[in-house]
Amino acid sequence: MKEKCAVFGFQSDTDVFETIYYGLHAMQHRGQESAGIATCNDKIRIHKGMGLVSEVFRNAYLSGNCGIGHVRYSTTGDSKSENAQPLLINYLKGVFAIAHNGNIVNQEGLKKMIEEMGGTFTTTTDTELIAHLIAQEHLKTGDFIKAVQATMKQLVGSYSLAILYDGMVIGVRDPSGVRPLCIGRKGEHHYLASESCALDTVGAELLRDVKPGEIVVFGDQMKSYSGPKGRLCHCMFEYVYFARADSVIDGRPIYKVRRDLGRILARESPVEADIVCAVPDSGITHAIGYANGSGIPYSEAFMKNRYVGRTFILPDQKQRELGVRVKMNPIRSEVEGKRIVLLDDSIVRGTTLKKIIESLRKSGAKEVHVRIASPPIRNPCLYGIDMQTSGEFIASEKSVEEIGKTIGADTLAYLSVDGLVEAIGHSRGDLCLACLTGEYPLENPQRKLVDE
Amino acid sequence: MKEKCAVFGFQSDTDVFETIYYGLHAMQHRGQESAGIATCNDKIRIHKGMGLVSEVFRNAYLSGNCGIGHVRYSTTGDSKSENAQPLLINYLKGVFAIAHNGNIVNQEGLKKMIEEMGGTFTTTTDTELIAHLIAQEHLKTGDFIKAVQATMKQLVGSYSLAILYDGMVIGVRDPSGVRPLCIGRKGEHHYLASESCALDTVGAELLRDVKPGEIVVFGDQMKSYSGPKGRLCHCMFEYVYFARADSVIDGRPIYKVRRDLGRILARESPVEADIVCAVPDSGITHAIGYANGSGIPYSEAFMKNRYVGRTFILPDQKQRELGVRVKMNPIRSEVEGKRIVLLDDSIVRGTTLKKIIESLRKSGAKEVHVRIASPPIRNPCLYGIDMQTSGEFIASEKSVEEIGKTIGADTLAYLSVDGLVEAIGHSRGDLCLACLTGEYPLENPQRKLVDE
Amino acid sequence: MKEKCAVFGFQSDTDVFETIYYGLHAMQHRGQESAGIATCNDKIRIHKGMGLVSEVFRNAYLSGNCGIGHVRYSTTGDSKSENAQPLLINYLKGVFAIAHNGNIVNQEGLKKMIEEMGGTFTTTTDTELIAHLIAQEHLKTGDFIKAVQATMKQLVGSYSLAILYDGMVIGVRDPSGVRPLCIGRKGEHHYLASESCALDTVGAELLRDVKPGEIVVFGDQMKSYSGPKGRLCHCMFEYVYFARADSVIDGRPIYKVRRDLGRILARESPVEADIVCAVPDSGITHAIGYANGSGIPYSEAFMKNRYVGRTFILPDQKQRELGVRVKMNPIRSEVEGKRIVLLDDSIVRGTTLKKIIESLRKSGAKEVHVRIASPPIRNPCLYGIDMQTSGEFIASEKSVEEIGKTIGADTLAYLSVDGLVEAIGHSRGDLCLACLTGEYPLENPQRKLVDE
Amino acid sequence: MKEKCAVFGFQSDTDVFETIYYGLHAMQHRGQESAGIATCNDKIRIHKGMGLVSEVFRNAYLSGNCGIGHVRYSTTGDSKSENAQPLLINYLKGVFAIAHNGNIVNQEGLKKMIEEMGGTFTTTTDTELIAHLIAQEHLKTGDFIKAVQATMKQLVGSYSLAILYDGMVIGVRDPSGVRPLCIGRKGEHHYLASESCALDTVGAELLRDVKPGEIVVFGDQMKSYSGPKGRLCHCMFEYVYFARADSVIDGRPIYKVRRDLGRILARESPVEADIVCAVPDSGITHAIGYANGSGIPYSEAFMKNRYVGRTFILPDQKQRELGVRVKMNPIRSEVEGKRIVLLDDSIVRGTTLKKIIESLRKSGAKEVHVRIASPPIRNPCLYGIDMQTSGEFIASEKSVEEIGKTIGADTLAYLSVDGLVEAIGHSRGDLCLACLTGEYPLENPQRKLVDE
Repeated sequence: MKEKCAVFGFQSDTDVFETIYYGLHAMQHRGQESAGIATCNDKIRIHKGMGLVSEVFRNAYLSGNCGIGHVRYSTTGDSKSENAQPLLINYLKGVFAIAHNGNIVNQEGLKKMIEEMGGTFTTTTDTELIAHLIAQEHLKTGDFIKAVQATMKQLVGSYSLAILYDGMVIGVRDPSGVRPLCIGRKGEHHYLASESCALDTVGAELLRDVKPGEIVVFGDQMKSYSGPKGRLCHCMFEYVYFARADSVIDGRPIYKVRRDLGRILARESPVEADIVCAVPDSGITHAIGYANGSGIPYSEAFMKNRYVGRTFILPDQKQRELGVRVKMNPIRSEVEGKRIVLLDDSIVRGTTLKKIIESLRKSGAKEVHVRIASPPIRNPCLYGIDMQTSGEFIASEKSVEEIGKTIGADTLAYLSVDGLVEAIGHSRGDLCLACLTGEYPLENPQRKLVDE
Repeated sequence: MKEKCAVFGFQSDTDVFETIYYGLHAMQHRGQESAGIATCNDKIRIHKGMGLVSEVFRNAYLSGNCGIGHVRYSTTGDSKSENAQPLLINYLKGVFAIAHNGNIVNQEGLKKMIEEMGGTFTTTTDTELIAHLIAQEHLKTGDFIKAVQATMKQLVGSYSLAILYDGMVIGVRDPSGVRPLCIGRKGEHHYLASESCALDTVGAELLRDVKPGEIVVFGDQMKSYSGPKGRLCHCMFEYVYFARADSVIDGRPIYKVRRDLGRILARESPVEADIVCAVPDSGITHAIGYANGSGIPYSEAFMKNRYVGRTFILPDQKQRELGVRVKMNPIRSEVEGKRIVLLDDSIVRGTTLKKIIESLRKSGAKEVHVRIASPPIRNPCLYGIDMQTSGEFIASEKSVEEIGKTIGADTLAYLSVDGLVEAIGHSRGDLCLACLTGEYPLENPQRKLVDE
Repeated sequence: MKEKCAVFGFQSDTDVFETIYYGLHAMQHRGQESAGIATCNDKIRIHKGMGLVSEVFRNAYLSGNCGIGHVRYSTTGDSKSENAQPLLINYLKGVFAIAHNGNIVNQEGLKKMIEEMGGTFTTTTDTELIAHLIAQEHLKTGDFIKAVQATMKQLVGSYSLAILYDGMVIGVRDPSGVRPLCIGRKGEHHYLASESCALDTVGAELLRDVKPGEIVVFGDQMKSYSGPKGRLCHCMFEYVYFARADSVIDGRPIYKVRRDLGRILARESPVEADIVCAVPDSGITHAIGYANGSGIPYSEAFMKNRYVGRTFILPDQKQRELGVRVKMNPIRSEVEGKRIVLLDDSIVRGTTLKKIIESLRKSGAKEVHVRIASPPIRNPCLYGIDMQTSGEFIASEKSVEEIGKTIGADTLAYLSVDGLVEAIGHSRGDLCLACLTGEYPLENPQRKLVDE
Repeated sequence: MKEKCAVFGFQSDTDVFETIYYGLHAMQHRGQESAGIATCNDKIRIHKGMGLVSEVFRNAYLSGNCGIGHVRYSTTGDSKSENAQPLLINYLKGVFAIAHNGNIVNQEGLKKMIEEMGGTFTTTTDTELIAHLIAQEHLKTGDFIKAVQATMKQLVGSYSLAILYDGMVIGVRDPSGVRPLCIGRKGEHHYLASESCALDTVGAELLRDVKPGEIVVFGDQMKSYSGPKGRLCHCMFEYVYFARADSVIDGRPIYKVRRDLGRILARESPVEADIVCAVPDSGITHAIGYANGSGIPYSEAFMKNRYVGRTFILPDQKQRELGVRVKMNPIRSEVEGKRIVLLDDSIVRGTTLKKIIESLRKSGAKEVHVRIASPPIRNPCLYGIDMQTSGEFIASEKSVEEIGKTIGADTLAYLSVDGLVEAIGHSRGDLCLACLTGEYPLENPQRKLVDE
């Protein structure tokens, strides 16, 4: 599972490039395929490319006192440099740059509408679709903000947008607030960021979240406009896995939520054991929470090789033979003869987890009790997370008991939906739980998976 | 001065990728900024990027039995990966890929027309404009070829297009035949190429040029459609400098034309001298022609360092100090005490030529007589060659005598326009001589320089 | 502080290259400057270069049924590719390859002795010195193992050697056992590794440590020879910091030692606080131990950006301004209003620690009590760890109280030497504590710092 | 056939790095495998690596007022970074750096002698052998120059050395003057270079060649010492092929020699033909000479693709299919219906030449008469050129007539040895013609091929 993107914006009275650079770098976990920055003084300058922020901007600099940036997720397929964002849109009223995190579920209908009027698309992004709508509405209404508002009325799905137009940074969040988007401030200047950790990194203070359905405009001062209303559907997986633990989203600190997920899971599914440990790094905070909740001591059962990274490519055959050992090795002295509670945030196929449990047993673990800090995922995400088709989820094919047997656990338990909602701290109706329950809150009868 | 682009197309019954790769590589001199290939079986696959053909396609392969390719010229400014071609265009009727060599002079008006209908542009290429027009006309007429014909009627300027649509390779040449485009054949299969040297390289035979205003379609067999008529305006600089010497364009072998340019120049502007030599590599063929025409022996006066290439970047200060010596060094034994005729194809600013003449004198040359195998360039090209503004041409500011003094030549002579026309062998009225005469044959009152 | 090196060796009846590759990769933490592998069938093949294992061997493969490998630490100065190991030594009796982890303290005298006989050195490594001695002794004694024994008698200092000679892998450990070296086994085949984590990674079992002063030879079966005797001096810093937590050195599991360091520190220097947290990643295990010992809950106070790596270079000015925030960000929800115990393994200059404490306070920490899980380091290492001169240690200039004030801690406490010894579990006399006490156990009056 | 190396040296009162850099770059044709520079102020600094000068020194700089440099030829086998030069030699008297062009034919005996005294070698270069001898002799004699003289007495073979010792640049040339070495001057400063083209490039004047058997020392002023005497054996292939055409070696301008080779060949082996052309680039100057001598016009029959370079790797299969066409394409208009004289400098296997002749015939050539501007090569070089074993030369297996048939020429003729000697202009006894005649002038009964 991969997050699709992050956006960042900054309006200042000096060059903004470096700040945007560091802001994007702080959100690199939300996308490693491509990165891009657009800045503006008299004209819009843009630089983007395939790779990490540090790679794309190795020798680049853009002057300009306002700007936006974007990182995009990594795919295994062909690199598609034309899909890198921000997109630069030339149209009758001039030019704007736009960057997007989310997924538009009614994009097919809207694209067809535009194509019927003779429109063309040079990328396969829904960002170009949004840009097209804004441009058309701008011609109609003559006002950019009204054009954004009119566009929002047509869009169904999730979107957190950063737009650079006419020397202004504009932030837009969909009426359901599916993806995060927040506002930072230092002195008189404002920042836009998908996650508050980016604000911390650049030394800004988290002012507030962009409200669902709100349009914010940074200029001499910040202005707020309201778009259409909708029911709230905050993505529960931002809390469980995607967001960085030091971010605060819609008023809820991610770290605290994750520890509470573990704590509540300890209450729901207790087990007698000697140590609580985690699949590194995804399960660590949940494991600490479980340890706190259960009174069983927390321990690190695995050592990760911190040099397994982008430069390290395992030949396929060797990978099968060596298994996960190259990446993480059980610490025998911690594991041998112990009854272990093993925490992770979720299970997709269970293949890696199975190997991890095998390696624990090979290192002498007596029992391995797996606890998953979220309910079983059974359905794909339509709102901006790159999940595979339903068939890819082990939980859509097997019962919890069968899964436990498959991965070789002594016992397996998932967190309940109620436990999840309690830990997140929003009311259940304000969350998108579609991947757990199959109830898709944003209307689109036709279930289309995210495009690649 | 830099050529803008080259296109290549190939229709076969096996994979076409490698053939297109080598075809583009043979035309690398027409563009080093970016390269791209699109192929098609059931769907269109595309790969493109910044750099040379060999760099962009280091680890790439695309399956498909028909396809087109493109190389683009190198700029010094920001890399603009979104301008790499072919462009992939999604529209109501489906999808096509398009690659373009040329320049549309009425692009501003046409872009405005499209923008007024709500259209947007995500690149700064006129290729996207052409694509837009074709898409719109396709919606209107319901037939792709008719759409291309209707588009041609709207375009003013130069264009040689390769289009990949619905399993067909389509070649289009503007009614004036400004840029070259030719058809090759091997067995039953057809090839499209900007220059015939690409056909030689892939083992195909030059069948004929695409006629000015013609549309050719490669499918089971080749079909030809006619577009609008126009006066012929073959670019004279393809013959003098841009095309590879082993190409044949519109029936005229480039090598022979260049040698004749030198031979006629010897007749027009003779001089007593001991040797004829060339600014390497641009003046070599002209110098051999001048030597043949004058009876003065040809000699290589310079040795080039063949390792001065892409990997070699001279620090600025050192470059001023060392001058051109790092790149080419006079051969003293050839030069010392000699009266020299030095041939080159053209003069833009004269800065390098001045240094070359200095280095000849420093190596003991007694006299240096410069002969330029084309008339003085005084005006920018509007039809697809990247020249600077008029102010950049030394010949638009100074007389021939003054130029000779500036560069430090004992005498300086240019070829006459009549001599040029004689060597090329087309009638004068069929050539574009705008950069020499200022008479722009393709109507567009408003002189806009090529976009960057 | 940087570890100097790691060695690996493997004897098999099929190609050993991949196993050595993964063995080195598992010990990449011991050296990132260069990597090298030598293998042998009929002749010795070698490949080495600057960079990580994955970079140096990207397209390399060496056939051969026995071989050795080496990784070397990273310096900031000039890259010295000629210092990469293994070294290949040609001499009268043939050829051998040698790789070394350690530091010879009497190298100046020995080098002079060899130079006086006309010897020359082409590298600045003490590895070449050891090789020279072995070669000379081999000429004298006529037997390779006797030559190694004779060489060991001359060497003062630390050395763990892997040698490839005549189809055999030979392991050598200095009589004091300063640096680790252990033997692994799978089936009939033997492995040599600086750390047992490398054995786990390649699926081998830890058989035992190479004994101090022992020579082991892998051939059809493993043979053991004894070299000179000496007092034991196991490096205490391997336990505290250098070795990977999943390694077992001289019978002591590193992870357990580290947790005990924290646990004993909690007993020695308790403090009333709300949470125990760590400087990531170096202090995590110590912090968990302190939490267990004190009963105060463990928490992660920081989020690290896992994309700060080799590709990310901070411009100097920006780095000063942004401080450590780009690399790690306090989690406000965990820190705000809390009394914090902050654990780390050691303090060199204290500069980073100061910034980390500042960032905690800025995020609302009420108190910050620093606990260091080892005694103050005041003296440089002469036995193979790249420490700076004494002047570089804050503890050699300031009292503990002054250090606490300098770094901005509410309280600061170090572990006692007794506590350290208790946690490691060897008798005090068997440990090298020179960097703490200034008592250098291996005789060399003249204190020479490690060569670069 | 590949030249082994080039050396450069420079003594100044400001930093010498850039001058050495450009000097090496001008001699890049003599070696593309590795490059290195050593400079000296108080201490010797060195930087070297695999690749072209521009690649190895991309981000490198070395301060120091005197220094030496080296480029080394490219092999197809394993990269051996430890063989890059200059070598840095530490010994009892201090340290020196040394760079070498040539080959020592009695190296085995000398190496054995040193090894018997306990010496070891860490590289496979004969440069390390020479360094070893100098170091030993220095211990004996107490004087560096005397040590060099004593070393020269022991060496049999070819060597042009650049040595950096004690703030001095020292140049050494073997008594036979096999490889070139010359001295340049600008103002008060002196330069050492394998070829004079490097002096031109850095703006220095060619003062004279280093005399065979001479030692020159650059310090406050230049001093000359004499080493042992020997018979002259200038390598004839420097004139025919290896040296850059703008160099002057032992008083003879290379360009003039090459043109004369062609001119004399026209006299020796005339033929009726329409044009004279060359295999590019190696035969161009010879062809111009043949054209001058015969009165038949010179023409360029081929167009080279100037982008076939280091970044372009042809897949093997495609290479067979496309033949040489990707690299060079006949210009049909020049070739069709013509009787052609095709010049090249030499034939090794004849494989490429065969394909070139085929491509000429395919482009319509009526007759192809091949003329080779040197006598047949039948024997390997022992003195510093990387030729294969005798079996690799077509001329050691076949008669001239058979070779002509094999390559598909209408007629084939080689230059005579007398013609070669006449063109070079040294007396026959002063030339090394071993590869032509099999008479090896430098005594070493045992024919060992150049080491790899």
